[in-house]
Amino acid sequence: MKSGVKKVVLAYSGGLDTSVILKWLQETYACEVVTFTADLGQGEELEPARKKAELLGVKPENIFIDDLREEFVRDFVFPMFRANTLYEGTYLLGTSIARPLIAKRQIEIAKQVGADAVAHGATGKGNDQVRFELGYYALKPDVTVIAPWREWDLNSRTQLLEFAEKHQIPIAKDKRGEAPYSTDANLLHISYEGKALEDPWVEPDEDMYTRSVAPEKAPDEAEYVEIEYEKGDAVAVNGVRLTPAALLTELNRLAGKHGIGRLDLVENRFVGMKSRGVYETPGGTLLSVAHRGIESITLDREALHLKDELMPRYAKLIYNGFWFSPEREALQALIDSTQQRVNGVVRLKLFKGSARVVGRKSPNSLYRLDYVTFEADSVYNQKDAEGFIKLNALRLRLNSIAKGL
Amino acid sequence: MKSGVKKVVLAYSGGLDTSVILKWLQETYACEVVTFTADLGQGEELEPARKKAELLGVKPENIFIDDLREEFVRDFVFPMFRANTLYEGTYLLGTSIARPLIAKRQIEIAKQVGADAVAHGATGKGNDQVRFELGYYALKPDVTVIAPWREWDLNSRTQLLEFAEKHQIPIAKDKRGEAPYSTDANLLHISYEGKALEDPWVEPDEDMYTRSVAPEKAPDEAEYVEIEYEKGDAVAVNGVRLTPAALLTELNRLAGKHGIGRLDLVENRFVGMKSRGVYETPGGTLLSVAHRGIESITLDREALHLKDELMPRYAKLIYNGFWFSPEREALQALIDSTQQRVNGVVRLKLFKGSARVVGRKSPNSLYRLDYVTFEADSVYNQKDAEGFIKLNALRLRLNSIAKGL
Amino acid sequence: MKSGVKKVVLAYSGGLDTSVILKWLQETYACEVVTFTADLGQGEELEPARKKAELLGVKPENIFIDDLREEFVRDFVFPMFRANTLYEGTYLLGTSIARPLIAKRQIEIAKQVGADAVAHGATGKGNDQVRFELGYYALKPDVTVIAPWREWDLNSRTQLLEFAEKHQIPIAKDKRGEAPYSTDANLLHISYEGKALEDPWVEPDEDMYTRSVAPEKAPDEAEYVEIEYEKGDAVAVNGVRLTPAALLTELNRLAGKHGIGRLDLVENRFVGMKSRGVYETPGGTLLSVAHRGIESITLDREALHLKDELMPRYAKLIYNGFWFSPEREALQALIDSTQQRVNGVVRLKLFKGSARVVGRKSPNSLYRLDYVTFEADSVYNQKDAEGFIKLNALRLRLNSIAKGL
Amino acid sequence: MKSGVKKVVLAYSGGLDTSVILKWLQETYACEVVTFTADLGQGEELEPARKKAELLGVKPENIFIDDLREEFVRDFVFPMFRANTLYEGTYLLGTSIARPLIAKRQIEIAKQVGADAVAHGATGKGNDQVRFELGYYALKPDVTVIAPWREWDLNSRTQLLEFAEKHQIPIAKDKRGEAPYSTDANLLHISYEGKALEDPWVEPDEDMYTRSVAPEKAPDEAEYVEIEYEKGDAVAVNGVRLTPAALLTELNRLAGKHGIGRLDLVENRFVGMKSRGVYETPGGTLLSVAHRGIESITLDREALHLKDELMPRYAKLIYNGFWFSPEREALQALIDSTQQRVNGVVRLKLFKGSARVVGRKSPNSLYRLDYVTFEADSVYNQKDAEGFIKLNALRLRLNSIAKGL
Repeated sequence: MKSGVKKVVLAYSGGLDTSVILKWLQETYACEVVTFTADLGQGEELEPARKKAELLGVKPENIFIDDLREEFVRDFVFPMFRANTLYEGTYLLGTSIARPLIAKRQIEIAKQVGADAVAHGATGKGNDQVRFELGYYALKPDVTVIAPWREWDLNSRTQLLEFAEKHQIPIAKDKRGEAPYSTDANLLHISYEGKALEDPWVEPDEDMYTRSVAPEKAPDEAEYVEIEYEKGDAVAVNGVRLTPAALLTELNRLAGKHGIGRLDLVENRFVGMKSRGVYETPGGTLLSVAHRGIESITLDREALHLKDELMPRYAKLIYNGFWFSPEREALQALIDSTQQRVNGVVRLKLFKGSARVVGRKSPNSLYRLDYVTFEADSVYNQKDAEGFIKLNALRLRLNSIAKGL
Repeated sequence: MKSGVKKVVLAYSGGLDTSVILKWLQETYACEVVTFTADLGQGEELEPARKKAELLGVKPENIFIDDLREEFVRDFVFPMFRANTLYEGTYLLGTSIARPLIAKRQIEIAKQVGADAVAHGATGKGNDQVRFELGYYALKPDVTVIAPWREWDLNSRTQLLEFAEKHQIPIAKDKRGEAPYSTDANLLHISYEGKALEDPWVEPDEDMYTRSVAPEKAPDEAEYVEIEYEKGDAVAVNGVRLTPAALLTELNRLAGKHGIGRLDLVENRFVGMKSRGVYETPGGTLLSVAHRGIESITLDREALHLKDELMPRYAKLIYNGFWFSPEREALQALIDSTQQRVNGVVRLKLFKGSARVVGRKSPNSLYRLDYVTFEADSVYNQKDAEGFIKLNALRLRLNSIAKGL
Repeated sequence: MKSGVKKVVLAYSGGLDTSVILKWLQETYACEVVTFTADLGQGEELEPARKKAELLGVKPENIFIDDLREEFVRDFVFPMFRANTLYEGTYLLGTSIARPLIAKRQIEIAKQVGADAVAHGATGKGNDQVRFELGYYALKPDVTVIAPWREWDLNSRTQLLEFAEKHQIPIAKDKRGEAPYSTDANLLHISYEGKALEDPWVEPDEDMYTRSVAPEKAPDEAEYVEIEYEKGDAVAVNGVRLTPAALLTELNRLAGKHGIGRLDLVENRFVGMKSRGVYETPGGTLLSVAHRGIESITLDREALHLKDELMPRYAKLIYNGFWFSPEREALQALIDSTQQRVNGVVRLKLFKGSARVVGRKSPNSLYRLDYVTFEADSVYNQKDAEGFIKLNALRLRLNSIAKGL
Repeated sequence: MKSGVKKVVLAYSGGLDTSVILKWLQETYACEVVTFTADLGQGEELEPARKKAELLGVKPENIFIDDLREEFVRDFVFPMFRANTLYEGTYLLGTSIARPLIAKRQIEIAKQVGADAVAHGATGKGNDQVRFELGYYALKPDVTVIAPWREWDLNSRTQLLEFAEKHQIPIAKDKRGEAPYSTDANLLHISYEGKALEDPWVEPDEDMYTRSVAPEKAPDEAEYVEIEYEKGDAVAVNGVRLTPAALLTELNRLAGKHGIGRLDLVENRFVGMKSRGVYETPGGTLLSVAHRGIESITLDREALHLKDELMPRYAKLIYNGFWFSPEREALQALIDSTQQRVNGVVRLKLFKGSARVVGRKSPNSLYRLDYVTFEADSVYNQKDAEGFIKLNALRLRLNSIAKGL
């Protein structure tokens, strides 16, 4: 038996794996276990988790179940989308952005109940262990972290099931066999990894997807949607003002109906290997496209370019788990400082798997027809372009002269 | 009459505007005019340009008509696509990337025929004047540049037509009225700007598009295409090896048929204002998506991230006209150094306006199933993750301790 | 006579050149001239400027003389030093950082007096014209800018003197001949350019320098100075709390006495050519060195590295005149967000031309002896390093395996 | 006894610590030990290392002693200096840059002698373990790495000495007591860390320094030195062409004599904590200053700025041990592509601790007096500046108009 831990807060889903972990913690550390179950919009009932925890001997006052959906979208998803964040050019970071919130709440509970340790159910090969633990350490530097998958010897499905049976942990029928994929879900996305997806040459089965219809089965007619922005955040859909979580829920519905938001990629994990992931991010895909649209008429060119150059680094920080870090906060300060006038409406056309911007307008628009028109104008003196070009060219000319051109 | 120019090489399309310029140059500068007409895959016959130039008094030996399609794709389009280049997150730079080649060939002709000046038909409000002229000055620092649109007083359509009639320049029937859009075309793309597009809230008419069917009218069945890469450049489509220009032509056909490659955006011009542009880049869109796909399994993580962070700057250089600059060349050296093992095949699914990667394979793949699998493994020690996380967390912990957390 | 300008605010030093400009403006534009003279610590009496302006016919209510020293150091110099700003690795931007403040105050006066134009005495080949005018346009987008040196035909010293004599502008005896250098001075620095310095191979004469003794003539004994920082700004010298301008004045005295702060370089101007400049920035050199010193123990590693990577771009913005731009403000938000705990004291050793950090301490120090010591320790587990290295190495190993190593 | 290792190549200095390691490896792994001792210019005799290795039972054919000085300077130091590399704004990376070469040669020997393992004497708290091991893994991905300091239980000086005595390892008299500092030396620098330096507020003792006289004791007269560059590398000193190592040796002599190259700082280690280091890099300091000098007249502005922005990242890669990585190689390709015309001579003035550029000249100079002079000129049209400024200001004006300014 390991020692030194008195009370541990476990990120508990209510599923088989974290139930095994719950029991294993009680056995291995002989410590009090506090469970924390978060509703991040993953689309599952949470009350069964309470019952299961009780069944496994957790005291009622040690069971925490929180609805974090609004906080999730408002304080994590939205700030991230202000940066047009894409990891490796494509991935909308649906899993990555949820981890710091879970870690934060877990530490809050640990402080509240006087726990000295926290535990999670992420494996030793993935990114999530890093994201959880960097969050834990940043928010409670003296915390003890328990990562059962890195410690125990339950290294096969069979062993896990045996442990569950031995400890009378209920096993749902469909959990007897191996799941065809490993998934993670929240209001922003659902991910699929492993097993059937391990050959990156093979296309996933259509029946894997759960949040979007196949583009082939989407409506034959396009649908238009208008998203309104204030200070870089979406606040209304088709003229209806919604809370952050309600707004994302509505966009998920609209985009999912049109087969939008599927992504199949090979990504680079922080721990060093490449892995194949397939994602559905219906509403997030609309937000990503629309935010660029509203920025295109409201954001200054150089502010936009600066953000674009820093975005990959910002995305990497989130992907790697550094949400609670001085460098992420510094970048956020920069990003947020650019969003003060990112207000207006973007019009999207949704059709069979794609979402395109077809219109954008803003009370703060920097688009000026009088400057851009082909008509004769008074506001812009075309002669200015000559000096502009000549001085931009000067160093190039001097370079060429020096080369004997 | 202006003086000091003896012989000028004009970038000549054979159209009304550059024909007026041709005449205006002869009149205004009393100089010999050399015309240069390039086939960049814009899809127009070029021989009429020869006849028209002759008609306007250009000597046969002063008429240059060159097929630059292979050079265009091989030496300009392909190097740019190695960087996954997107200006402002979306634009594939179809116009920008053609300008330096035109400038380069124009200067070559100027040197060959002993011309002291060059001229182009770009206006004083756009980016193309900058791109042409930076190219000219970089390649022939002592050249005289004539930009008639910035110099003359033909500031309305009416004046232009009057000048044409007065000088017996033939005016095609459909050029009498105002064109509904300004367009630029080459093998990579066609652009539409101005007039009916000047309100960024209004969606363009469907009948504007020329290179792609509407997604609504695309086939109801998806089509798969396989693109093979060598050192970061596409070399074969569906197993058939093709020259660069032939390959892009074939991809244009495939993508156009499925309604792929339309883009509607508001962009920031180098000269300072925002403008709305609509683009069709069918084959280029496939290349953009596919190149990320092949890099995802063949490129090292940090090399990929470095490229991603530098891409917006590289895109800006091309957009702003700095192709022939030390900084673009330095970035190209970096980019090209990463592409030596970017070999393999990407499988795309084309359907009603979108192209998605659904498979990728490579003889140089860095994807390793044995490292990523959920199965028990020998190559990766999960315990290593603990130390990895702890040392990554150390500074965060020290920060928090110093803050009294 | 030019028309369209009714009242112009001139940045007026009281010297010969701007006096000629004053007269020239009255003559050429037949407009009312308002003079603005700023005390930025250049070390000259400003009252003579008032008398001279009056002599040249400026109405008393149109003469503005402001002591801007505190604002200069507090709102311009200090924010810039928070970034450890160096242009091209070496230049402390002493001239660049003063221009936006002059432009800002000039525009404030223009708004106050209802002027429609502003004018400055910078030439058409330098950076200062850009810095002034970008400031003007950013703060009053409809302003008319008059840059006499780009407009008039007084293109030689002789012509200038003739104009002065003709208009009874007093010429100081030592201004009859050509100045051996062009200089600009404020509390942060003095610059020398042109004339005798135009050959970058030739060392400047010792008697050119005015703010520092020659290192050879500095005291034979080193002197220590302690600078205290709060939130990244210097607040006290040797334990004595001082206002920003007083602090910089004191540091100038100390550093100048020890021959510190001379810099001889060739820099790249925004307008396209290289130029040689020699600078004395005594106190600024201490601040630059000391700020890195205090950051070294109080700033998180990644925040520090992020700042370092962005610094050249921030420096370039200031050098090029983009102080009042969204991108400079966004970078400032990032920089300032990192300085909240940059508190403490730095100890410098000053000796014959150089200033070195020899000690630093802070109530917010992140330096932890218990982590770094060679002694056996409990806080750091050396075994963690193995996992840390192995996972950092993983992608390198996979790369090498794929290459057949 | 640990198993699985048959033959190990040890980076062997001949000193007490690595002798203990040698013995410990023989005992613990029961394997054949191969020693590798490199002359990197650390200034010690290497033949005693051979005798000591023999004494400790290493077979003569298993003792490798190599003079790597020329390779060190040519292939590691010089490429790094092409980037004006400074870690955290100040540190010249003297230790960091030597580690990859040692790792490389060690792996070459391992391949030659058929060893399956390598070992080094770096501790578990520092950067060097990372630098060695990342090099090992990158060059021989299947190698076994032994880091005795992380494995054994000889955790105090006393235990180490006991082990040495027990195994009849000779102990030099001055090694009985604790060394006042930990040092690392090569041709580029010597470092001091730990013990007496652990309080970052306390100035080091003067008698610690070994490569430079105190500035106070340096000659009272300045000395000038001229360094010639070809393609960014120094090739001659005061007109005498020298090999890379000979050149650096000569610059060390000159700079050391004038008290140049001392540096006292607190740096951020890759493993997560801050540490205080004091360095002497006499010749390297001259090279650093001089390289900026020669670039200032030969390098294009934008190429220079691009390099400057990437430098901190390049420095970090070297500091963290990623010399043999795709991203370092990609950056090197960029850097080297800029150095093709970095030729010429820089003149430095050395005096009592400081080195300043006072002159620079080049056959490829981009400095053009005719462009920069204050005299009336024909090559530059000052009127061009107006258009240049106006178009640079346009977006700022539009921003301000939109804000109602």
